[in-house]
Amino acid sequence: MKNPIERLQETLLHGDARKAALVFSERNRRYFTEFPATDGALLITSENAYLLMDFRYEEAARYQAKYCEVVGFSNLNGKLGELLKKHGIKEVYLELEQLSVAQARRFEKAFQSCGAEAVLDESLDNVIREQRMIKSPEEVKKIEASQEITDAAFEHILPYIREGVTERELALEIEFFMRKNGADNVAFELIVAAGKNGSQCHAVPSENQVQKGDFITMDTGALLDGYHSDMTRTVALGHVSEEQRAVYETVLRAHLAVIDQVKPGMPCCEADKIARDIIEKDYPGTFGHGLGHGVGFEIHEWPRFAAHDATPCAEGMVITDEPGIYLPAKYGVRIEDMLLITADGCRSLTKSPKELIEL
Amino acid sequence: MKNPIERLQETLLHGDARKAALVFSERNRRYFTEFPATDGALLITSENAYLLMDFRYEEAARYQAKYCEVVGFSNLNGKLGELLKKHGIKEVYLELEQLSVAQARRFEKAFQSCGAEAVLDESLDNVIREQRMIKSPEEVKKIEASQEITDAAFEHILPYIREGVTERELALEIEFFMRKNGADNVAFELIVAAGKNGSQCHAVPSENQVQKGDFITMDTGALLDGYHSDMTRTVALGHVSEEQRAVYETVLRAHLAVIDQVKPGMPCCEADKIARDIIEKDYPGTFGHGLGHGVGFEIHEWPRFAAHDATPCAEGMVITDEPGIYLPAKYGVRIEDMLLITADGCRSLTKSPKELIEL
Repeated sequence: MKNPIERLQETLLHGDARKAALVFSERNRRYFTEFPATDGALLITSENAYLLMDFRYEEAARYQAKYCEVVGFSNLNGKLGELLKKHGIKEVYLELEQLSVAQARRFEKAFQSCGAEAVLDESLDNVIREQRMIKSPEEVKKIEASQEITDAAFEHILPYIREGVTERELALEIEFFMRKNGADNVAFELIVAAGKNGSQCHAVPSENQVQKGDFITMDTGALLDGYHSDMTRTVALGHVSEEQRAVYETVLRAHLAVIDQVKPGMPCCEADKIARDIIEKDYPGTFGHGLGHGVGFEIHEWPRFAAHDATPCAEGMVITDEPGIYLPAKYGVRIEDMLLITADGCRSLTKSPKELIEL
Repeated sequence: MKNPIERLQETLLHGDARKAALVFSERNRRYFTEFPATDGALLITSENAYLLMDFRYEEAARYQAKYCEVVGFSNLNGKLGELLKKHGIKEVYLELEQLSVAQARRFEKAFQSCGAEAVLDESLDNVIREQRMIKSPEEVKKIEASQEITDAAFEHILPYIREGVTERELALEIEFFMRKNGADNVAFELIVAAGKNGSQCHAVPSENQVQKGDFITMDTGALLDGYHSDMTRTVALGHVSEEQRAVYETVLRAHLAVIDQVKPGMPCCEADKIARDIIEKDYPGTFGHGLGHGVGFEIHEWPRFAAHDATPCAEGMVITDEPGIYLPAKYGVRIEDMLLITADGCRSLTKSPKELIEL
């Protein structure tokens, strides 16, 4: 497979020497060059790629940035102008989804002064999205390596779940375990929600103490080498009621039905419907979010398993399958794996068990 | 002092019932309502404020969001349209510095369909910037509480600095200490750079092991209750050379000269020049970044102690004072406090010692 910059040159610039793409957003700069820096810009022409870095990052970028030439600058627009003139660039594609209105205006002005024009259509965004949706085998390996840490953290945390432990203590212990075992960071602010708090699907870990009979929902993930993992498991402390068990089993059935049926060509919205139909039948109105989202270089990316996304599933996509049932003021259950779409179906990248665990 | 939403209503909307501001960015939404959520929007009219939250956040927002009424939505533009019509809003200010070109276009279209217009000038950005630059006494207290954790972490880490310990181990130990002692998170990816790595002012902690005679630069900070702290200290393992000592003392002199001289009315660029002149005299070309940046609700905010920023210092600003000398392939030294501009000068919010520590 070609490297990400070559892929973009091929699909967007088609060998046209008068065209270039300016990748300004932190996330996409890092995606293309594997170099993390809060500031800077990546100019991709049909034949070259220049990563413009200020004093703070220039030296480190020379050692670490891939697929591009590192160029130092003290004035970004000045240095960009030089490069545009040198290559005779007339049109520069910009990232409309990432670039602020104010920054786009600044670039437009800077380009004009050297005879080039900003292209303010969706071409660059679309090409980047299409490219990033399909993970290369190397990217899948990185996601799996990240998920290995998340799986290990789940096994690690189970003995810590006792009466009186707080959501916050559990979240910290999971995070510390991940960081000590190689994660560069957590993939997002980890969610641990016990008992009633579980009915808020994005609850922030609080001082709430775990009690007997609680469901504990843990939505966790690691960040490793630029790639995210994302997994949710709901376990119980002590024995659950019949009602709780029925809720759990319904979520699990919805989750497994998706793994069973999803395959290339299926519109993403259909995967959402498979899970939703199962839950709506017995617990109408309790599953208030989409079924899942792409994961990879960002924790939430494309496509979405959601009613509004008709993108056909394709080999190489990595998408979460995370149905849930939320009963306000009572509890909630969510189960989540990451699915890799394969040639003839899908494969879960998540190894942790999902039968109900009563601790 | 009025609450942040009342301040904005007063300075931007002037009681005009036909005008509203739409705060869409995550950071500004949180600044105004103190409620963290990755998605949503805050509509501020001359008399009301509505925080629009989807299913995931709605319940939590009702408990926690301040100064506003929480409104649930499944379709953001639909719900916004209802509110605009209900209040007869004709003009909606947007955040040009935060809003992507693509999102601005989507809002323009949605507003048009209910007879309102997007205001795409800098008014809202300017008002928010002016407002956020001057910290309220409550905000200063929050920054100080955050810095207390950072100071404690510095004291905690010193005994860990021994031959053979890696930058990464030190960075993790600092972070874990902060998190266990109440920090919600670190303020940024902590920097620990030893020996040669210290010449990269934004080095990422690596497996590099600390050796005798190394300078170790630690740029650290905590995030607590939405507010950041930021401090850099450079210490040595064992005794340093005369050359190293002279570099350290020069950075310290530059740092202290700023604390001594800065006061309300002084242009920010002049503070930068105070430090720069001292360093340039003996170590020309080695101080390649600005002297400092505003800190508060974001880790980097306005104003900047930098050559290009002529903003006059004003009471209530919190700005870092962080001169450095970087000798490529040798080492680097940086010393950083946060300064609160007071009625007649400034007060450092940082308590850690800054005389050279040789461990």
